[in-house]
Amino acid sequence: MEKRIPSYYDIEKAASRISGYIHRTPVMTSLQLNNIFKASLYFKCENLQKVGAFKFRGATNAVLSLSEKELTGGIITHSSGNHAAAVSLAAGMRGAKAYIVMPSNSPDVKKDAVAGYGADITFCEPTLQAREDAANKIIENTGATFVHAYDNYNVICGQGTAGLELVNDHPDLDIVLGPVGGGGLMSGTALAVKGFSENILVYGAEPLGADDAYRSIKSGKYIAHHKPDTIADGLLTTLSRRTFSILSDKLDDIFRVKEENIISSMRLIWERMKIIVEPSSAVTLAAILENPDMFSNRKVGIILSGGNVDLSRLPF
Amino acid sequence: MEKRIPSYYDIEKAASRISGYIHRTPVMTSLQLNNIFKASLYFKCENLQKVGAFKFRGATNAVLSLSEKELTGGIITHSSGNHAAAVSLAAGMRGAKAYIVMPSNSPDVKKDAVAGYGADITFCEPTLQAREDAANKIIENTGATFVHAYDNYNVICGQGTAGLELVNDHPDLDIVLGPVGGGGLMSGTALAVKGFSENILVYGAEPLGADDAYRSIKSGKYIAHHKPDTIADGLLTTLSRRTFSILSDKLDDIFRVKEENIISSMRLIWERMKIIVEPSSAVTLAAILENPDMFSNRKVGIILSGGNVDLSRLPF
Repeated sequence: MEKRIPSYYDIEKAASRISGYIHRTPVMTSLQLNNIFKASLYFKCENLQKVGAFKFRGATNAVLSLSEKELTGGIITHSSGNHAAAVSLAAGMRGAKAYIVMPSNSPDVKKDAVAGYGADITFCEPTLQAREDAANKIIENTGATFVHAYDNYNVICGQGTAGLELVNDHPDLDIVLGPVGGGGLMSGTALAVKGFSENILVYGAEPLGADDAYRSIKSGKYIAHHKPDTIADGLLTTLSRRTFSILSDKLDDIFRVKEENIISSMRLIWERMKIIVEPSSAVTLAAILENPDMFSNRKVGIILSGGNVDLSRLPF
Repeated sequence: MEKRIPSYYDIEKAASRISGYIHRTPVMTSLQLNNIFKASLYFKCENLQKVGAFKFRGATNAVLSLSEKELTGGIITHSSGNHAAAVSLAAGMRGAKAYIVMPSNSPDVKKDAVAGYGADITFCEPTLQAREDAANKIIENTGATFVHAYDNYNVICGQGTAGLELVNDHPDLDIVLGPVGGGGLMSGTALAVKGFSENILVYGAEPLGADDAYRSIKSGKYIAHHKPDTIADGLLTTLSRRTFSILSDKLDDIFRVKEENIISSMRLIWERMKIIVEPSSAVTLAAILENPDMFSNRKVGIILSGGNVDLSRLPF
């Protein structure tokens, strides 16, 4: 499957493969938010997914797709966040060892979560080079199989199952809107939604301070490096070649949003919906706030990507 | 109905009366919390109810039970919190005017919520006497019908519908546990659960700093006044004669919990379940934390009463 871009059928297969392992998360609505935004909003609550984020879908699909032989040396990834926890939990489901390379400056809450799932953690300097070097060294020593957080078609297909559930529950949506970091969730979402119906518009949302996807897609030239600066800690990563290619083809538009609107949108979701979402999830609502004419009176599906927040360091 | 203690049948009638107006809230579970508490916990999420609290059930049942004649002068209550918002919204559903007497020191967020539902607000000094005086003056002038927050059988029956839904969804529960403030929710819950099955134990939980219900029930002597001091702002009220009578008869036990355990339990729910609950909701989990032997390996239904929190003033 690594040779070609996944099809709608691949996402359906992923959905059936992981269905016994993941939560089928609820789609929530809020009359108050509908009134404020003058649109009908359908929130797909991946903050209520296992490990508190959609990442568990992709990690589970990737791990379940590996052969016994590929599992014998264990599974390895480098990640500072939700993907690390997701791989750790998914590996455990198949009785495989998980090796996680984490930057030494990762928040304690995330280190604790990964350790809690029984992973073998290696800390490294907080640079991509150090992460890759540390991972390669472990691969040499153990023969572990690497599962990238988003530059991996099995991961992308797993992430797409959230959008697939959303349009199956609400087939009459006009728009589906998701956050863009490395592009794994957004790529899977676009493949799922466009495969379900070409008539549904698929939009991405990104912080202005981490707008590599916007610039790559709008210019048609892939930007491999950028220096992100945003509160949305799940969206610091850069598109990969695979996600750039899919999003360039499938995305109808992409919006950049201001930091203050990410924070105010996050607070609105907490206050009105009584659920906890991380800043990365709130870029979507911020995009509606900043572009009301694009969403007014439409039925809009929104992927709430995760809910892992350090409660001691809230922006409000 | 005001003349006799409500029956299980009265709560079923309330459920059918209000079903088109309220949310049937989800029952959530968390493997992580089950592991921590070594019990199977079933959380009835009234924080996801309209107006963010169970109070909307009782207010709706009370307002829908009034005759057209009783509605002509409007509806009045005094409340600093969720009941005020609930009555305002419920009154609007029947096209009736809502008069709300609020203490002048109510949080802005609650004043705004009540005003947002179109209620006519009168501010008064923050004493029970001032609240009752202000309410009586308005009743004299308008003929409005008073709906007490909990010393009212129609309100109690409405509150009981949350527990009724919980045991209907999970008939094999061993225990149902709820918070005790004025006792409306707990009375309705006890009537519903014991009416459904005498075999299910019904426990109440209360802050140590507002333990009038504990002392009233344990001593058998009704305590009409106390000076509460707790972060659980929804549990500052005192039992009424009606709720004292029901709880003395129906409750299997009542626990008092420490402030620090309310706060740590609240944080656990936020962090592990990704939902927002107010401190009053967390006294239940705190009771399990402090009395593990009473709950170990049992199936425990927990009423999460509400999610209205001032995010600018969190205890963590």
